Amino acid sequence: MIDVGIIGGSGYTGGELIRLLSNHQYTNIEICTSRKFAGKKVSDVHRHLKVFLDLEFEDVSPRDLRNRCDVIFLAVPHGTSMNIVPDIMGENTKVIDLSADYRINSQTFEMLYGIKHTDKRDVTYGLPEIHPEISENHLIANPGCYPTGAILSAAPLAKSELINSVIFDSKSGITGAGVNPTHKSHYPNMAENVQPYKLTSHRHYAEIFQELSLMDESLINVNFTPHVIPSIRGILTTAHIFTNKQVSTDEIKSMYTEFYKDEPFVRVIDNIPTLSAVKGSNFCDIGFEIDVNNNRVVVISAIDNLVKGAAGQAIQNMNLMCGFDETEGLWIPAMSP
Amino acid sequence: MIDVGIIGGSGYTGGELIRLLSNHQYTNIEICTSRKFAGKKVSDVHRHLKVFLDLEFEDVSPRDLRNRCDVIFLAVPHGTSMNIVPDIMGENTKVIDLSADYRINSQTFEMLYGIKHTDKRDVTYGLPEIHPEISENHLIANPGCYPTGAILSAAPLAKSELINSVIFDSKSGITGAGVNPTHKSHYPNMAENVQPYKLTSHRHYAEIFQELSLMDESLINVNFTPHVIPSIRGILTTAHIFTNKQVSTDEIKSMYTEFYKDEPFVRVIDNIPTLSAVKGSNFCDIGFEIDVNNNRVVVISAIDNLVKGAAGQAIQNMNLMCGFDETEGLWIPAMSP
Amino acid sequence: MIDVGIIGGSGYTGGELIRLLSNHQYTNIEICTSRKFAGKKVSDVHRHLKVFLDLEFEDVSPRDLRNRCDVIFLAVPHGTSMNIVPDIMGENTKVIDLSADYRINSQTFEMLYGIKHTDKRDVTYGLPEIHPEISENHLIANPGCYPTGAILSAAPLAKSELINSVIFDSKSGITGAGVNPTHKSHYPNMAENVQPYKLTSHRHYAEIFQELSLMDESLINVNFTPHVIPSIRGILTTAHIFTNKQVSTDEIKSMYTEFYKDEPFVRVIDNIPTLSAVKGSNFCDIGFEIDVNNNRVVVISAIDNLVKGAAGQAIQNMNLMCGFDETEGLWIPAMSP
Amino acid sequence: MIDVGIIGGSGYTGGELIRLLSNHQYTNIEICTSRKFAGKKVSDVHRHLKVFLDLEFEDVSPRDLRNRCDVIFLAVPHGTSMNIVPDIMGENTKVIDLSADYRINSQTFEMLYGIKHTDKRDVTYGLPEIHPEISENHLIANPGCYPTGAILSAAPLAKSELINSVIFDSKSGITGAGVNPTHKSHYPNMAENVQPYKLTSHRHYAEIFQELSLMDESLINVNFTPHVIPSIRGILTTAHIFTNKQVSTDEIKSMYTEFYKDEPFVRVIDNIPTLSAVKGSNFCDIGFEIDVNNNRVVVISAIDNLVKGAAGQAIQNMNLMCGFDETEGLWIPAMSP
Repeated sequence: MIDVGIIGGSGYTGGELIRLLSNHQYTNIEICTSRKFAGKKVSDVHRHLKVFLDLEFEDVSPRDLRNRCDVIFLAVPHGTSMNIVPDIMGENTKVIDLSADYRINSQTFEMLYGIKHTDKRDVTYGLPEIHPEISENHLIANPGCYPTGAILSAAPLAKSELINSVIFDSKSGITGAGVNPTHKSHYPNMAENVQPYKLTSHRHYAEIFQELSLMDESLINVNFTPHVIPSIRGILTTAHIFTNKQVSTDEIKSMYTEFYKDEPFVRVIDNIPTLSAVKGSNFCDIGFEIDVNNNRVVVISAIDNLVKGAAGQAIQNMNLMCGFDETEGLWIPAMSP
Repeated sequence: MIDVGIIGGSGYTGGELIRLLSNHQYTNIEICTSRKFAGKKVSDVHRHLKVFLDLEFEDVSPRDLRNRCDVIFLAVPHGTSMNIVPDIMGENTKVIDLSADYRINSQTFEMLYGIKHTDKRDVTYGLPEIHPEISENHLIANPGCYPTGAILSAAPLAKSELINSVIFDSKSGITGAGVNPTHKSHYPNMAENVQPYKLTSHRHYAEIFQELSLMDESLINVNFTPHVIPSIRGILTTAHIFTNKQVSTDEIKSMYTEFYKDEPFVRVIDNIPTLSAVKGSNFCDIGFEIDVNNNRVVVISAIDNLVKGAAGQAIQNMNLMCGFDETEGLWIPAMSP
Repeated sequence: MIDVGIIGGSGYTGGELIRLLSNHQYTNIEICTSRKFAGKKVSDVHRHLKVFLDLEFEDVSPRDLRNRCDVIFLAVPHGTSMNIVPDIMGENTKVIDLSADYRINSQTFEMLYGIKHTDKRDVTYGLPEIHPEISENHLIANPGCYPTGAILSAAPLAKSELINSVIFDSKSGITGAGVNPTHKSHYPNMAENVQPYKLTSHRHYAEIFQELSLMDESLINVNFTPHVIPSIRGILTTAHIFTNKQVSTDEIKSMYTEFYKDEPFVRVIDNIPTLSAVKGSNFCDIGFEIDVNNNRVVVISAIDNLVKGAAGQAIQNMNLMCGFDETEGLWIPAMSP
Repeated sequence: MIDVGIIGGSGYTGGELIRLLSNHQYTNIEICTSRKFAGKKVSDVHRHLKVFLDLEFEDVSPRDLRNRCDVIFLAVPHGTSMNIVPDIMGENTKVIDLSADYRINSQTFEMLYGIKHTDKRDVTYGLPEIHPEISENHLIANPGCYPTGAILSAAPLAKSELINSVIFDSKSGITGAGVNPTHKSHYPNMAENVQPYKLTSHRHYAEIFQELSLMDESLINVNFTPHVIPSIRGILTTAHIFTNKQVSTDEIKSMYTEFYKDEPFVRVIDNIPTLSAVKGSNFCDIGFEIDVNNNRVVVISAIDNLVKGAAGQAIQNMNLMCGFDETEGLWIPAMSP
């Protein structure tokens, strides 16, 4: 049994970490921090967790954290993790950072996030299907929600150096924007609507580009446009991929099946994925169709942005780092419908 | 052609007043005020109104208002109207106040709203189906959204002194809570959910009780519980009415049809009303079913909270006060589906 | 390890039984039947269950069922169970019927469902919080979804014989109406709408009346009106309860807490329940508010109609009948938001 | 005053034609046909239209139609119009066909729709912003909903022969699929979900390709993928356009503004369009953003699929054909929020 700390536990990601860890047989949630709710019961904030944990939010020092926890999840805003990580990294502490701080190189980070990076170090990008070296590391940068769905949808084709250009057109639920009400999350603005935003300049683009470039360094023409649709959870990504030579349905099917054959959470399916088959679960469903006319492959991926796109993937990373079964605590079907 | 001013025009009610008045052949929108957006184009805030009016929000004095407008709509927060009304009432100015300030007697107002009333005067309650004297007044208190649906659903039975007790269980869209994002209006809290609130203590209760008491002074057992459901617009009220003697379906049908026979905006229908048949329109649909067992009549009313429950009713009041046809500018069908 | 059969496994209830049983450590799903989908993989119909079970739908005889299963869940239409039960009941077989066939006395059943009852026998009503004798029975009638929420909301007050009259005003998600598309479930008719129906004559009324009468035989004035709201899952019931004497908030709180003190799935909370805190889980959340004016208590209960209102409760019954821990396989938090 | 006939008036398009024509000062709805509902009041099917027209559905012969109507709208299934048109075309009858029968050349039609075309003739494609010759014709093929949004989003760039390739990624409300319940329109499958479909083979592609080719005959690389999102109405199209040379924001802005300067229903805006600003109205809002990296322009268009994408555009065509003001009956703002 290991002791787990969740730093910044009052948001959606914190709630999901607790929900999922309540089914994990080797972890004990030791600390859950929140500056805002310190002293308040966790289940008074996350009401659905009532009777599942008897813990109050605390506001503790990094040293305290290091002493009390074997694994620490950082579910804090961008720019905050870099101030905590140096103090909590110890010989035996494992850290999974769910913020953007360590996902991309610090120079790009500074440009995109407008924050000076104060803890420059090489950190493994925590997408387990792509980075087997996760198990050997003590600090992991958990991927962004959009990049998780986008990269997994294109990776086998990128690895095969078959991509000429790709447009990721993503449709996301609103929980990616967090627990605090905004003009964007206001129900009258969300319901029965679609909200495209940052049409050409979303910051997650850098992660997508970085990871695909690692697989195919000649790949330049990568494009990404996000939309919010009326859904609490989920990201469906439509990857319009133009290939540099004609490929058949069978070739693509083999390529994807082979690429993900040892990955428990990627399901290459024969139909078109939808959000309802993955919600609440750690799965990424992938399906596709060939358009022979313009050498286009349309690949669809579906994930739950809060699970495979955040908390679930973080636990998957923890499992790998701690030598647990990769699926421990995560082997639950989606809630559907 | 009369000149109209809208005080507090940046909210949902303001937007609806403009939308509906754009179809009114005898009005010109002269002023639209907003402290927050003064100097900004109205259609930059209400984007759907682009090309319909070329006006900027102003921040003007009451005297200015009185000089430039024949009719003034007050779409301001509770407690604000009472500070404006004394300054804008003039010999030829007609005022429709959409706030709660003048709807109930000032003593009850002070108790419920916790605000000292500084302009105590008798004002007609602007529910045209109940108060024919509206046409003779210069200041009208436009009813609350819940009371509009509740009172209209029970009025014929109250007038006949047949009600023993009544429970109004109302289901409302979220726009009643306004244009500003809140925890309650946050999409993840609204979608796929129901939010009961103020189970026994909503302030609109006072209006409902006041109006039904005017029809049947012995009626004491009146109850009201509101809920927010996943809908932008609309209020559906389920009135569980226990009668003091047995009544038949035919009797109720006749009673309601007769009561509303000259009212263009109340449709007594043979089916069960739903929100989708009234959205965007000024109609109140009413249907019912008899439960002989316990002398219960279940009456359902459906309105659009922003139209018959606010802006539409205000224009209906203006039409009556100005001698226009009661339906002018309002004779548009609901947008359905 | 016991072998479980699900008769009629292609609907929502079947899907939920499988989803929940996939977390149950003492059960093996041996058979899943469907006439329509016989020969097709279960996970091709319930796509979210892919990789969780490798089973095809079968179309088998009752004798086959009895031989291969220790526990059988009947998730078939009303009027069908009574034709199957006599053939599958054996010395060692336990049966949980999720249809209406055995919930109410056969005379009332015949009147309400318009079907001749061919297997009249006394069967325990499977609401575990009310009927401790479940553990001693081999055939259980799993309650309707509305009755589960309604009865639990009023039981403590009924038991104390404090209820004068009660109106259950229920708001349900659409999955209660099943997996087949109808005019009612058509998205343009559901979204942004409320659909009241069977205002005074829903068949679940008989179950509610039966169970409350068992607690307080003098209770006559019981009323029920259902509504469909834009939600996939969940039933929120607003119980307007008029008491025969004044009761305080503390008294009610104590009464409910005491009544449910040994019941793991009923959470008496200090706030107003909402659907989002119970979705996907087997919990029933209960909260309330007192209206001193008219001796009214407004009690709110929230359940997931497919879990506590169907499949979850059925598994809870199985656990009790088989001597497992009552919460086995069901101790999972709601998915929220 | 002209007499109008609506053939196939019981669907969503029929309902919208009536809703909009009820505000048109020069038309009288003379006939509304429906085989299924013949003899039933139109407002018993379209309940929101109660009190707006006192007409029953009829089932009449083409000859009858021709004698009684000046203008006929065909809102019938694909493959049906071609059997009606030859019989109703007369010297003075004007016909707007809302089906696909005459939109594309008959050879392509036969291939895509699998129906033999029995009435091959050249018909003008009724997109008024592109085809000024509409006013001189007696038979118009009203465009598909997706093509309307897609073509308008790309036309100015196509006309300037600046497009290298274009991917139209469209997000549609479900009413495009019609009034009859299907697995796809079933609320539990629609809500909180996205449904991509016909990823590379939707039939509307042919219209899009045809119209863009007319503007730039060298344009080959045109791609289209549709999705259904949780919305009753509306189509938002994200046009990812790769240009054959670099263009600036100002150039695009000028190009679009100039192209649409005389078109009352296209609003080129400075923000990102959303569905809520156009719902219920005949407007097409267009906005865009430049991605200098890959010579990509992301253009967003938003329309109401039932109005500008069907009934509204049909009335716009009628206005042009009859010499009325183009905006007559259509100059109403969207209902927002």
